[in-house]
Amino acid sequence: MAAELSGGDLSRLRQLNALAVIKVLQGQPSLTLTEVAKRTGLSRASTEDVVRELLQKGWVAEAGATAGGVGRPARRYRFRADAGLVLGVDIGGHKIRAVLADLDGNVRHTARVPVTPEMGRLERLEAVDRAVEESLAGAGLTGDDVWASGVGTTGLVDGSGKVMLSEALPEWTGVDLAAHVRRLAPAPVLVENDSKLAALAECWRGVARYAKDMVFLLAGLRTGAGLVIDGKLHRGFGNASGEIGALPVLGWIRAQEHLGGEAGDVFAAAREGDKAALAAVRRYVKDLALGASALVLTLDPQMVVVGGGFSRSADVLIEPLRRELDRWCIRTPEVRMSALGDEAVVLGAVRLALDDVEERLLDGRTPLVSRP
Amino acid sequence: MAAELSGGDLSRLRQLNALAVIKVLQGQPSLTLTEVAKRTGLSRASTEDVVRELLQKGWVAEAGATAGGVGRPARRYRFRADAGLVLGVDIGGHKIRAVLADLDGNVRHTARVPVTPEMGRLERLEAVDRAVEESLAGAGLTGDDVWASGVGTTGLVDGSGKVMLSEALPEWTGVDLAAHVRRLAPAPVLVENDSKLAALAECWRGVARYAKDMVFLLAGLRTGAGLVIDGKLHRGFGNASGEIGALPVLGWIRAQEHLGGEAGDVFAAAREGDKAALAAVRRYVKDLALGASALVLTLDPQMVVVGGGFSRSADVLIEPLRRELDRWCIRTPEVRMSALGDEAVVLGAVRLALDDVEERLLDGRTPLVSRP
Repeated sequence: MAAELSGGDLSRLRQLNALAVIKVLQGQPSLTLTEVAKRTGLSRASTEDVVRELLQKGWVAEAGATAGGVGRPARRYRFRADAGLVLGVDIGGHKIRAVLADLDGNVRHTARVPVTPEMGRLERLEAVDRAVEESLAGAGLTGDDVWASGVGTTGLVDGSGKVMLSEALPEWTGVDLAAHVRRLAPAPVLVENDSKLAALAECWRGVARYAKDMVFLLAGLRTGAGLVIDGKLHRGFGNASGEIGALPVLGWIRAQEHLGGEAGDVFAAAREGDKAALAAVRRYVKDLALGASALVLTLDPQMVVVGGGFSRSADVLIEPLRRELDRWCIRTPEVRMSALGDEAVVLGAVRLALDDVEERLLDGRTPLVSRP
Repeated sequence: MAAELSGGDLSRLRQLNALAVIKVLQGQPSLTLTEVAKRTGLSRASTEDVVRELLQKGWVAEAGATAGGVGRPARRYRFRADAGLVLGVDIGGHKIRAVLADLDGNVRHTARVPVTPEMGRLERLEAVDRAVEESLAGAGLTGDDVWASGVGTTGLVDGSGKVMLSEALPEWTGVDLAAHVRRLAPAPVLVENDSKLAALAECWRGVARYAKDMVFLLAGLRTGAGLVIDGKLHRGFGNASGEIGALPVLGWIRAQEHLGGEAGDVFAAAREGDKAALAAVRRYVKDLALGASALVLTLDPQMVVVGGGFSRSADVLIEPLRRELDRWCIRTPEVRMSALGDEAVVLGAVRLALDDVEERLLDGRTPLVSRP
């Protein structure tokens, strides 16, 4: 039986080969053709072809030669992470954050504009503009240099990048964030709920790197969740997964109330052994764990990652949370605190943008012109 | 850039091509080589090679020629669904069911042995033996003719085919069902929780054929759930997904109690407009919907399918259930009643066995010798 491939298959295979070479080079400072061939499993001839094309396109550069044992030194090649840039934006209640990252996902420039939960739509959108413009100006770039943008926001987001429903922010339901950010950077804009992006970030750069199934818990002034199933962000049929907080009996609606207006003070007092503070934290954790248990019992994930503002108080939160999960769950998954802190959502936005760049590299839909 | 494939890739591609040809032939009474080539996208030469090999292996047979427009009539080929058989077993509280099905999943012979929820381990396993032997004898076969067995049981099942935990059946925790069924038919045995298998069956032959994400609700003397996510059965890290019933606040533990000992009578009285019966059904549905809402809010599936014994009373259940889901869910998915009734679990067991046969066809791990 001979393997026969159609023209479309061949073109797809070429692009898969190109992506395989890029992925191998991304993990290393530089590699020889022989090393690339070995790690990708491609033939020597195919490897040469792919690397030549990537050199032409500016994705790969020569990295100087190193002397081998005998004969002339082998040429080395490196991935050009600076061939393009992506924009990540996190629109929160208290701050807007915008970052520019290279193709390895390393943040090159970051800008932060404070906002308040009470701000209306226009004021918040103006703050988004300021944050994006600051990050571009700081990096000496314009919006045309951006290959893709990822945007995280509170609320439910539809497939076109509009906010379908936001209960946390006033006048936020109905905002077309994709269209708004496209004014600043004309490349494709992907918009997603902030808990979902934080989940993505934890699986990429955080404590869930080796988990195929995980539940991310946003523990902060709001309580939310993002799910990664079988290595992929699980959005749901109407992009409304993880919304267990809608079920009053599971306690997320009232969870933060136990901590009063200044949660940080309560955690600090609990840390000092204050009895009232400890009781308040216990009540908060009970409610957090009830909704979390519903997620865990549904999915039986490998790991639960706790992020959001309160994850800074891991020392007083994590043990009570484990105990409460143990109480309800058939199998209590590993519970980890996020190490990404404030950065999780914006990193997830960067990952979303990079996924889009890789997809376009594969399907050739949008030309990606590398920077010199 | 040339496409280069290693020896392993080629062998895998050959097997993928063979499976593609089988899948195309399975959907039709018979096809010509030209039609097979067109539908698979393979070249004429590859198609000829694949069909020749499948003829030799006994998976495909000639189906006689039909006259075309001009020239000599083209040969036609058909998939030999009777080349092999799989066994499906459903071990329930009230009955054991065993079926033999061909490679198209059509049931060739079925046997049913009544049991009681109170029976101990040995008695129930003896009933399993009787059901399997009856189904084999009825089809004039022995256990050696079985290519793979799928087994459904209540309780949590581990990866090796042992029951980890069963609360519904006495002495059932710890039973090694895979080893037990292998005594009767030495081919590979796959064991899975019954709600999970019913979910699989609904996506294969039931009302969820076009749903990528669905929640199956087992509504009967027990309440349970099975999840299909992104077209695949979601088992969970410890095979304990869908166990929302463990959370008392979600009501599944007490749900059936509202219906008393004879649920069928209550549904019948409700159908006649009896007020007490209607109130009991309403209380049952409220509890069923609470747990179901937790599953729906977690996953945001396209569809909820209600199966199990109570799905026969769809007329009095489905509207109240939709209303309760509407009350709690952000987006209420399509709610459908199972049309598979009693057959869902055993059909899911057949599907599990067929998946194993296809996997072995692909990896060549176990030789599959077709029957003449």
